[in-house]
Amino acid sequence: MRAKKYVLSEQDMPRKWYNIMADMPTPMEPPLHPGTGQPVGPEDLAPIFPMNLIEQEMCTDRWIDIPEEVLDKYAIWRPSPLYRAYNLEKALDTPAKIYFKNEGVSPAGSHKPNTAIAQAYYNKVAGTKKITTETGAGQWGSALSMCCSFFGIECKVFMVKISYDQKPYRRLMMETWGANCTASPSNETRAGRSILEKNPDSPGSLGMAISEAVEEAVADDDTKYALGSVLNHVMIHQSIIGLEAIKQMKMAGDYPDVIIGSAGGGSNFAGLAFPFALDKINGKEIDIIAVEPTSCPTLTRGPFAYDFGDTVQMTPLLPMHTLGHNFVPAPIHAGGLRYHGMAPIVSQLLLDGIIRAESIHQMETFKAGLTFARSEGFISAPECNHAIAITIREALKAKEEGREKTILFNWSGHGLVDLAAYESYLRGNLSDHELPQEQIDNALMDIKPLPKPRQAT
Amino acid sequence: MRAKKYVLSEQDMPRKWYNIMADMPTPMEPPLHPGTGQPVGPEDLAPIFPMNLIEQEMCTDRWIDIPEEVLDKYAIWRPSPLYRAYNLEKALDTPAKIYFKNEGVSPAGSHKPNTAIAQAYYNKVAGTKKITTETGAGQWGSALSMCCSFFGIECKVFMVKISYDQKPYRRLMMETWGANCTASPSNETRAGRSILEKNPDSPGSLGMAISEAVEEAVADDDTKYALGSVLNHVMIHQSIIGLEAIKQMKMAGDYPDVIIGSAGGGSNFAGLAFPFALDKINGKEIDIIAVEPTSCPTLTRGPFAYDFGDTVQMTPLLPMHTLGHNFVPAPIHAGGLRYHGMAPIVSQLLLDGIIRAESIHQMETFKAGLTFARSEGFISAPECNHAIAITIREALKAKEEGREKTILFNWSGHGLVDLAAYESYLRGNLSDHELPQEQIDNALMDIKPLPKPRQAT
Repeated sequence: MRAKKYVLSEQDMPRKWYNIMADMPTPMEPPLHPGTGQPVGPEDLAPIFPMNLIEQEMCTDRWIDIPEEVLDKYAIWRPSPLYRAYNLEKALDTPAKIYFKNEGVSPAGSHKPNTAIAQAYYNKVAGTKKITTETGAGQWGSALSMCCSFFGIECKVFMVKISYDQKPYRRLMMETWGANCTASPSNETRAGRSILEKNPDSPGSLGMAISEAVEEAVADDDTKYALGSVLNHVMIHQSIIGLEAIKQMKMAGDYPDVIIGSAGGGSNFAGLAFPFALDKINGKEIDIIAVEPTSCPTLTRGPFAYDFGDTVQMTPLLPMHTLGHNFVPAPIHAGGLRYHGMAPIVSQLLLDGIIRAESIHQMETFKAGLTFARSEGFISAPECNHAIAITIREALKAKEEGREKTILFNWSGHGLVDLAAYESYLRGNLSDHELPQEQIDNALMDIKPLPKPRQAT
Repeated sequence: MRAKKYVLSEQDMPRKWYNIMADMPTPMEPPLHPGTGQPVGPEDLAPIFPMNLIEQEMCTDRWIDIPEEVLDKYAIWRPSPLYRAYNLEKALDTPAKIYFKNEGVSPAGSHKPNTAIAQAYYNKVAGTKKITTETGAGQWGSALSMCCSFFGIECKVFMVKISYDQKPYRRLMMETWGANCTASPSNETRAGRSILEKNPDSPGSLGMAISEAVEEAVADDDTKYALGSVLNHVMIHQSIIGLEAIKQMKMAGDYPDVIIGSAGGGSNFAGLAFPFALDKINGKEIDIIAVEPTSCPTLTRGPFAYDFGDTVQMTPLLPMHTLGHNFVPAPIHAGGLRYHGMAPIVSQLLLDGIIRAESIHQMETFKAGLTFARSEGFISAPECNHAIAITIREALKAKEEGREKTILFNWSGHGLVDLAAYESYLRGNLSDHELPQEQIDNALMDIKPLPKPRQAT
């Protein structure tokens, strides 16, 4: 029988995370304080994050020890299996070899616990009693809820109200793990109350939910805030995906020509891609593709600039590809990819030519998701279908060219609590929309230019 | 780092199923034809099942080769990991060692594909073009839908109407895998139409859905019917769970004193327990416990008798523990355990003293499910919570006795599409109900006694 999965033992699980900041061709610009315009220091972030995570955020060591207690929790589902997608290859009749890393095996069903475990642990060590966060579609909020329950930390999730109403199963996952999940905007914060005063029927937004979560964290010394993507320490924690995949590709006696991941804030893409990107920085030829929705084309159509991470301008200014903090993407089902910005590290690596980006319309992603489900079995999250769709394009291109190309993509999570999206697609209720340049231009009007030009190769 | 999971490679996956019919202390009584009262022969079943499965149903060989194509599909998620539940042990402060077999890693989220793959394969070989089935809560219907899509077989699922309306996600899984899922009773069969004529608002039942599925299968030579539990061939296919677990317990350097599985039709319980039961038959001391809901106490309060598998009396009479084919259990959330009968093999092994049975109330099972989710991470199906609750009881008993007992239970599937049940529990909307003996007595009025008394030890 041919091997379908490459499975590492717990003993083979990586003991260190990889930090690509040690190897970037162009050093990162620092985040800026929104008031002073000066680089933020650790003390500026101390009311929001515990100091051990702030230090990690700014750290440029190549390898960072994974604490024993984090490894112990990782072992609940890690190392995750790497698959050879023989059945998908057959369905596509392609000479390409397709591999995927299955991050859906975590109890929360996505890659998000890779950083949620680490963040909950560092907060525990720092004495944090309660963590606040925001969530849109709910993958991050549910992952953090689970990890807080492991470490006995109280967890409060502000969930964008429209998702709170439409996605009761994600909210119920959080409650099952003991978290408090509140629809945002809420009456529980000053920010929430001021929004509700102006618009009692506000459907909420990620930006509003961030304001509420940060306000509640800042108000209490024992409460901190956590973010599930974008930041450097999140990219570091997710590197375990790619570090495992390198070992597993060796088991398969293969090496990827193409690496693909869907990118919202950038963390699942970075998790798989960065450990391989080191080989590319050192001269190896690999095509590394971040996939984003055509309706939220941060990397493919947004400039690299300083912008706020949130709509209400409370966060530091981050150097990143952005569509502007006021940009409101179409309500596509891949909620996790509806973010105006992109991780600064991912943004810089795009400029440096280490990675490239593709955008794709929603309809093609759901078609790809069905092809995958009916060949490989697994039903994918709508976000993940973006990576699958580009994988299928690359596999079909290989067929046209008659090339035996090796493709590896990150299967970032299952879609079992996102099935309403599949229903819309199957019932013919979805369509694609072009995004007019004018809409992007309008949203970009009040972003800040970079202090000095960045290298673009 | 201590090992949390015991993972077999695909090369170590068992190549043969185990058939406990070769080793049973008391041979099985045959099923009877409902019209003649005579044992059914292969030809009686031929309109419903393909001949290769009928032969397997009657086979008494101890070991049965798993076809290569079935192994290839099993490899999508098998071998499944065996876990040491350190975090649950810690939460319970017990000296007991708790292990569980994780069958939730299949794309359908439960153990059901173990037999669905095999049944789809044998049907494919026999030339079946379409398979019909019924489903209650939806675990079986979704598993069969996926496996039919793998083998290019059309799949039609009659889903109990009240579940069809209440559990849209399970229906959507079936549709994502390309199956046709119809609410039962439907207008598509004579049986369905006659039920709707009398009661246009009928909420449906498993019995009605079986009638519709069997009618559609019998009407067309290329269409067959499939059942997800109860029958001997299903028990055979599920034995891969226990066969893997035996190898994994060896890896752990341990052997179970207690084996626990929840039992509706009996297949997940049998899958884990039967390969170990062989050791018990050969003299080893193991406590093997089938767990059922107090509201549907087939093994603990039902007699062993000949009874129909369905409400409308179309199936052969099966020798089994039963509450009577007219028994209607309370609407507990563990829909997969709301079946009036029990697999004949499980029933006979109870009489022979190889296994024993416990019943448990719903509230205790959800409490157990929360304890498990908040320690081990995984959110369990309500059915599975029955096994967890008895595991917790046994672990706490070990604590009282100061004994280092080894417990192994079957984690038969996740509850991510059953979260509405958790919501009811968390909101305080659930309660327990005693089942009056009179209700059982009434339902048992028209079952048939066995032709000769069975051995009861």
